[in-house]
Amino acid sequence: MATWGSCGSGAAFNQPQWMQIQFNEEKPEFNKLPTKTGHRSLTRSISQSSTDSLSSGCGESSEEESSPRDKLQRNSKGLADFCIKNIDQADFGRREIEVAQQEMPALMNLRKRAEEEKPLSGAKVVGCTHITAQTAVLIETLVALGAQCRWVACNIFSTQNAVAAAVVEGGVPVFAWKGESEDDFWWCIDRSVCADAWQPNMILDDGGDLTHWIYKKYPSLLKRIRGIVEESVTGVFRLYQLSKAGKLCVPAMNVNDSVTKQKFDNLYCCRESILDGLKRTTDVMFGGKQVLVCGYGEVGKGCCSALKALGAVVYVTEVDPICALQACMDGFRVLKLSEVIRQADMVITCTGNKNVVVREHLDRMKNGCIVCNMGHSNTEIDLVSLHTSELKWERVRPQVDHIIWPDGKRIVLLAEGRLLNLSCSTVPSFVLSITATTQALALIELFNAPEGRYKQDVYLLPKKMDEYVASLHLATFDAHLSELSDDQAKYLGISKNGPFKPSYYRY
Amino acid sequence: MATWGSCGSGAAFNQPQWMQIQFNEEKPEFNKLPTKTGHRSLTRSISQSSTDSLSSGCGESSEEESSPRDKLQRNSKGLADFCIKNIDQADFGRREIEVAQQEMPALMNLRKRAEEEKPLSGAKVVGCTHITAQTAVLIETLVALGAQCRWVACNIFSTQNAVAAAVVEGGVPVFAWKGESEDDFWWCIDRSVCADAWQPNMILDDGGDLTHWIYKKYPSLLKRIRGIVEESVTGVFRLYQLSKAGKLCVPAMNVNDSVTKQKFDNLYCCRESILDGLKRTTDVMFGGKQVLVCGYGEVGKGCCSALKALGAVVYVTEVDPICALQACMDGFRVLKLSEVIRQADMVITCTGNKNVVVREHLDRMKNGCIVCNMGHSNTEIDLVSLHTSELKWERVRPQVDHIIWPDGKRIVLLAEGRLLNLSCSTVPSFVLSITATTQALALIELFNAPEGRYKQDVYLLPKKMDEYVASLHLATFDAHLSELSDDQAKYLGISKNGPFKPSYYRY
Amino acid sequence: MATWGSCGSGAAFNQPQWMQIQFNEEKPEFNKLPTKTGHRSLTRSISQSSTDSLSSGCGESSEEESSPRDKLQRNSKGLADFCIKNIDQADFGRREIEVAQQEMPALMNLRKRAEEEKPLSGAKVVGCTHITAQTAVLIETLVALGAQCRWVACNIFSTQNAVAAAVVEGGVPVFAWKGESEDDFWWCIDRSVCADAWQPNMILDDGGDLTHWIYKKYPSLLKRIRGIVEESVTGVFRLYQLSKAGKLCVPAMNVNDSVTKQKFDNLYCCRESILDGLKRTTDVMFGGKQVLVCGYGEVGKGCCSALKALGAVVYVTEVDPICALQACMDGFRVLKLSEVIRQADMVITCTGNKNVVVREHLDRMKNGCIVCNMGHSNTEIDLVSLHTSELKWERVRPQVDHIIWPDGKRIVLLAEGRLLNLSCSTVPSFVLSITATTQALALIELFNAPEGRYKQDVYLLPKKMDEYVASLHLATFDAHLSELSDDQAKYLGISKNGPFKPSYYRY
Amino acid sequence: MATWGSCGSGAAFNQPQWMQIQFNEEKPEFNKLPTKTGHRSLTRSISQSSTDSLSSGCGESSEEESSPRDKLQRNSKGLADFCIKNIDQADFGRREIEVAQQEMPALMNLRKRAEEEKPLSGAKVVGCTHITAQTAVLIETLVALGAQCRWVACNIFSTQNAVAAAVVEGGVPVFAWKGESEDDFWWCIDRSVCADAWQPNMILDDGGDLTHWIYKKYPSLLKRIRGIVEESVTGVFRLYQLSKAGKLCVPAMNVNDSVTKQKFDNLYCCRESILDGLKRTTDVMFGGKQVLVCGYGEVGKGCCSALKALGAVVYVTEVDPICALQACMDGFRVLKLSEVIRQADMVITCTGNKNVVVREHLDRMKNGCIVCNMGHSNTEIDLVSLHTSELKWERVRPQVDHIIWPDGKRIVLLAEGRLLNLSCSTVPSFVLSITATTQALALIELFNAPEGRYKQDVYLLPKKMDEYVASLHLATFDAHLSELSDDQAKYLGISKNGPFKPSYYRY
Repeated sequence: MATWGSCGSGAAFNQPQWMQIQFNEEKPEFNKLPTKTGHRSLTRSISQSSTDSLSSGCGESSEEESSPRDKLQRNSKGLADFCIKNIDQADFGRREIEVAQQEMPALMNLRKRAEEEKPLSGAKVVGCTHITAQTAVLIETLVALGAQCRWVACNIFSTQNAVAAAVVEGGVPVFAWKGESEDDFWWCIDRSVCADAWQPNMILDDGGDLTHWIYKKYPSLLKRIRGIVEESVTGVFRLYQLSKAGKLCVPAMNVNDSVTKQKFDNLYCCRESILDGLKRTTDVMFGGKQVLVCGYGEVGKGCCSALKALGAVVYVTEVDPICALQACMDGFRVLKLSEVIRQADMVITCTGNKNVVVREHLDRMKNGCIVCNMGHSNTEIDLVSLHTSELKWERVRPQVDHIIWPDGKRIVLLAEGRLLNLSCSTVPSFVLSITATTQALALIELFNAPEGRYKQDVYLLPKKMDEYVASLHLATFDAHLSELSDDQAKYLGISKNGPFKPSYYRY
Repeated sequence: MATWGSCGSGAAFNQPQWMQIQFNEEKPEFNKLPTKTGHRSLTRSISQSSTDSLSSGCGESSEEESSPRDKLQRNSKGLADFCIKNIDQADFGRREIEVAQQEMPALMNLRKRAEEEKPLSGAKVVGCTHITAQTAVLIETLVALGAQCRWVACNIFSTQNAVAAAVVEGGVPVFAWKGESEDDFWWCIDRSVCADAWQPNMILDDGGDLTHWIYKKYPSLLKRIRGIVEESVTGVFRLYQLSKAGKLCVPAMNVNDSVTKQKFDNLYCCRESILDGLKRTTDVMFGGKQVLVCGYGEVGKGCCSALKALGAVVYVTEVDPICALQACMDGFRVLKLSEVIRQADMVITCTGNKNVVVREHLDRMKNGCIVCNMGHSNTEIDLVSLHTSELKWERVRPQVDHIIWPDGKRIVLLAEGRLLNLSCSTVPSFVLSITATTQALALIELFNAPEGRYKQDVYLLPKKMDEYVASLHLATFDAHLSELSDDQAKYLGISKNGPFKPSYYRY
Repeated sequence: MATWGSCGSGAAFNQPQWMQIQFNEEKPEFNKLPTKTGHRSLTRSISQSSTDSLSSGCGESSEEESSPRDKLQRNSKGLADFCIKNIDQADFGRREIEVAQQEMPALMNLRKRAEEEKPLSGAKVVGCTHITAQTAVLIETLVALGAQCRWVACNIFSTQNAVAAAVVEGGVPVFAWKGESEDDFWWCIDRSVCADAWQPNMILDDGGDLTHWIYKKYPSLLKRIRGIVEESVTGVFRLYQLSKAGKLCVPAMNVNDSVTKQKFDNLYCCRESILDGLKRTTDVMFGGKQVLVCGYGEVGKGCCSALKALGAVVYVTEVDPICALQACMDGFRVLKLSEVIRQADMVITCTGNKNVVVREHLDRMKNGCIVCNMGHSNTEIDLVSLHTSELKWERVRPQVDHIIWPDGKRIVLLAEGRLLNLSCSTVPSFVLSITATTQALALIELFNAPEGRYKQDVYLLPKKMDEYVASLHLATFDAHLSELSDDQAKYLGISKNGPFKPSYYRY
Repeated sequence: MATWGSCGSGAAFNQPQWMQIQFNEEKPEFNKLPTKTGHRSLTRSISQSSTDSLSSGCGESSEEESSPRDKLQRNSKGLADFCIKNIDQADFGRREIEVAQQEMPALMNLRKRAEEEKPLSGAKVVGCTHITAQTAVLIETLVALGAQCRWVACNIFSTQNAVAAAVVEGGVPVFAWKGESEDDFWWCIDRSVCADAWQPNMILDDGGDLTHWIYKKYPSLLKRIRGIVEESVTGVFRLYQLSKAGKLCVPAMNVNDSVTKQKFDNLYCCRESILDGLKRTTDVMFGGKQVLVCGYGEVGKGCCSALKALGAVVYVTEVDPICALQACMDGFRVLKLSEVIRQADMVITCTGNKNVVVREHLDRMKNGCIVCNMGHSNTEIDLVSLHTSELKWERVRPQVDHIIWPDGKRIVLLAEGRLLNLSCSTVPSFVLSITATTQALALIELFNAPEGRYKQDVYLLPKKMDEYVASLHLATFDAHLSELSDDQAKYLGISKNGPFKPSYYRY
């Protein structure tokens, strides 16, 4: 779930400097910018839950740290071509997958509908995504549709080990575990691409690291690749850069900008997860609390809507006058951060920008103020300014730090400024289902497209497919669509079966 | 306020048959399609309040019907170059204009800012819009900016006579009154265009009738026209047709598809006016009532939101699966009309389509069911099917008809199926202010654009202007925008002053 | 609809000033207990809409003022025993009554159920209430149940003349018209009580004036009276005073404090009417507006809920910490009037108190601020302070005054500080149905009660009857009650048929 | 937090059979009714969080089960007069207490205000409540006010061991741990009452078990007891029984029925915890889900409000027509369980009744339906009917069971039908603060009351104290109360300082 695309302030333009050169250099710039934890921040490409949804969203399991790379494991059929934490957790992971299936009806439906014709028969998909129960449902759907898959994690923290075990037990090679080192990360990618007698012809990527690796190490493979499906803002940005530079040699599908993904992953998902993330970490009561939400894009809209609904008094900051006017009409006071910072009980950043909350603001917050980020990476709150000698950090719970000022004032910082909903809450399977279904359809489309339909360029998902994804999810709500009569369709000048709206329609 | 653009079902594609040929023929097709009342239905171009907001929204004044064309009037300065109902109502109209000014701060602000430089100095604007207090604020702003104006009504019913009088008293020639005949309508347009020693160089149109007339009768004038600003769906459609046919010889600005207009005129405006329209006509209580809203575009979204907020149980019908999925996530059951028609207390059409509610549905409604239209023209409810001998019509209040079935069942039809919010409620001046400000800025832009910036084509308002319009309205809410630092702007890859979003951003 | 009972601040204790002189004549018993104040305000007893719901809520008809007392009229059956404005308006009034019937299903239901047994056979009811379409439905229900009725208005302004005509045409003597003088008022009451060969044995009162008159002028009648049903706060207060003084010689039923009346007349009714009243008078847009609501009792809760739902930013003032805490939990900032007065776009009083908004506040309001009262009588806004020479009053619409400060600032005062919902909106028939049904049941109960069940005291409606009234209204919503099993009822220790809650339950 | 008092169906009448005789027998009836787990169900007296809020709400720690009774521990000052799990956890518990303090400003305020005069100086309080961080704040406030305390748990599961350790380290003897046996339970109570040279003179009870024990075993102590403060429905019921039987020999304060407790513990608390409890257990998405809420008392109102706000479609069942009518007006369809059971995605019981959801309903639910209880004890869902051989139970997560029908259908049962918010979510400290403050004030009042003010009876908290509790909590919201002028107070007939409402006011 990439939340950046619709953050308050022009996140879609977001172009971290280092990224612009990353495909041009031997050594990608980002490798040079280690975070405090000693490995690159992968959170930029987190687009699904990075948390282990089994226990609480904030669980920090203390599994011992012997490397999976050191041990040989086999699944019950003897398969050894994988590398995960512990194959013995497969049963537990299977249960989680089954739970997820209940909320992912569209993929299950796709399995049923398409099972016979196997539209992915012959497809060899290498995938690089978060490895969660929901991804497992996607992978196993692709297999049901005829594909052969190999999978790797797009994030060093987000793998659900038990789920990985279940997928492996099901026969799909997976190379991923929670808590990889950076070296592990690239080693796993490498292993997922290269296999005896197996060469990928489709790429499903989330963040662009897999694509990048193939470009760097196995350019010859690209000749066989029929298409790339990319989900994240970052990965899409990289593809457009490649395309601009004339170096994109494979048709690519930009899944990130589909309507369903934008509206559902951001607006609706954040509406649900902001409450969850705050409750699980702080048990805070929402009623009557004064909350400051920075940014009124889709993410901010979702957060504001939920908090207001639960009785909070919400203030908004914005730089874009159109979004600001929407906030006004929706009943929120739009003020500058400095005007309300003293009275805020919670401050939530949703801008997609950097240094939105800085030390000056933090200094003026009142005792007990909760600060967290729903927007983008970990840039929105200026954490560097908090790592100074006069401030004391105290971890009071997992993902919850008290930062203590010399006068005793405590600020409650969640998830160290990383994305709250990825760190401290779970993402509803249903929302992920929408994205996963879109990915599956994009793979089918690219794999089966007649020669020439797609050039070596980046494509948006046809609106009709967007509509198809939506329609597959209506059954969950027992919703019944109306149908246009011939006469009505003619009156509107559209086809009875859609697409029903022009491409620029805003929804 | 054109509500169609964002109705549930692809209204933007809306292409009434007759329209497609109208510019090709001597006699526009629409003249051949008289409505029952003996003149063409002008409601297609109603884009503002057609009601007299002085008394109640549903007032039907019974002014005697002697034609203004027959009498000579003069304003207090001796001006006789106008044709309105009664110049003596000017004082009353002025009061209404003053009330409107309080809710139109952006135009007042524009007057102040631009008064000195007179950016419209030299502009001769002929305008064809609804003539209401809000339009008067626009007209007088244009004058303050340096323009000379002549004005005419775009709708035979929507003129506020007192306001027209006040505008005339202020020195602007107006040719319009409430209750024109079709002949009057074209006569007025003609008079507005032709004046001694005055030739227009700018057109402000709403519906395209004025533009059409100039094309037909005074094509030579077009050479002097620097630009056309068009607000309505219909007028914009006509312009695109002209453009496609290579006949557009003037740059034109499509105001209809600006963000602020779409979101504010539709979503927010309907949220307010649906309650108002229903209350003024029926005094109905909303709490607990079962309401069926057909269509979940912007208009439907606005209606559903307000009705739910006041305690109604709302059901939605949709043909577009994406909108349907949004309705689900927003907490509405999506069903077919036939599934819930029996239990509905109210049925509201917001589709932009035709024959959405037909006789079969009406036959199955329960006694007392209220039926009205918020969507498009008067096509959504199949009125023809209700004009049959077995059904008795009884007018119980202005704009309220009881249609009585043989068994005594009564259906309450509002505004004879025409747009409820235009017929039975008032439109908040603030919303109209957004549209009017956009029109003023579009005129300024086209009038002052350097040679060559605009070709003979249809243009969308630059996003930056959209943002400017929004920013001018923030003062009303005492809202304070945040500003990007240089560093932040760089990080986002945008200018500090906007535009802040890419063109396809959905808001 | 008496809204006072649940206003923010102890409205139940409320005793208007000028009431104290009205009884200074003969000296009625409850005159001695005058309320701390002085003369009566007739508005104190307004408990239903005082407006003519036919046209707009704010219509000010200019009917000529010849007194109905001077002319003899007859209905179509020759009846002359009545005094109303104009019997010829009966048809029009009948239509309004029919419209009201549709929203008063419980009374219609009662007619059907009880028609055969005629539980009011032999009852001679003299009633003194607002005379509106909804009252007409009550009166005609009483007649259908077997009663003989004579009716009079409890308020000199609130009579709907056409409705009065229709009731008379139906055979019930009515003595009331809109715009009575005080002398007319008592003359009408007198005429309603005295008739040849007709003596009342039941009283239905709203405000206590009828009861008072009988006590003073016809004490001998009291021997025959089987019961008094009183609806208003004031009337109930008077009855308790009589009872305390040992002078109540008839059983009386306090309808005002029934749950359904309190919650529905106040909370839900105000939720609907605040929007309606503001729109009809000012066409104001709610979205984004800053609204200050004084008092968070039931009335304030209803107003706040509706305004927030439509996108307003609402602030609350309160004196009671419990209500203040509720406001906080419901998401409203609780502040002092002086803290937010400068930024308010609207100020609405709902306290039941006096001089809540005073000149000092009015002086500090911003230009265009709308001020109105939903709470109590006309005491909440200090009007006296506005009638000074330096302020100019300008009536811009019916019920809408601009008060203009020397510097040009305009404050928009609605209904001259009287109750907005009674002056400028209509009250939903459904809400009135609840009260009217309660009155009918109270009459039936008192009339049929076995000797001794009720002493000469003031009684609350048995909770079971409250529940019965509620149950009669559920059909409107097609709501289906569940039933307790024997086992469950035993477990809860209650009867299967109710009452389901202890008397102190707060709902 | 006792939620029963305001459940849908007359919970206040709730009189479990066994209770009525329990004080008459040697062996309390409840001892004879073992639950499946082999010890009596103590959940009847759960009135606060029974969960360990440290980790997730659903954590089931697997601490080894050696009995604390077997080991001798000492705190750092050498105190050995206590029995808890592990004194070493004190630091961790202290941190939790500090977190709780931030949300319990009223108690902290009370400490400051009353510290000097020590109004509880001389008080010896024996307390029996849930032992949580919030209780610790209460206990330490009592100590700060001058009291000597000994404490014991009212529930065998709800003790937070670390908190107990911190309280002991602070010097207060505590006898409680998570997972006591029934024998442990009574042993602990006994230990708390009896101490060398220490006899209690005040009782703070939650459920009545402590009071019961003193009555049975140490009746002589009662002579010294100045008062009992009881919080729970059950305990209050027992006190009224004693009083009726003439056996209550000590003044008692019924804290349960105070306004703040009823409205805040139930309505607002459930509004927050229903979402939390469902998310933590199932990660379910609320948007668009069809939810059936049984009962529309305060608990049901809170649940419905939150679920609707997050986009669920909510249906209500009710037996009480008044509550049903409220549900209608609030926008919920009121139906019988059997009418909607097939389409529900979730079923939530809030009735206070028993066997509301029975096997017949469970058989008809759809696959994946989530079933849980927010209402009362564990009686609402007929669990017995699910323990049959054809159904398979599968624990998928802590507190989450899948019950699998022969055809594969799975029902998701939460917390085995026990109270969801106590088992699977945390209760906001702020809400508990209100109750705890009330308890503290009740202790102060009873301890300091002059001889004769309170007889041997059960008293409600004076309304003025209720208002005082509320006022102490306003600072959290930075809320500012308005004050009545002398004139206004006189007008309303009340004191300037309250109480502001009559006792029967419903809020």
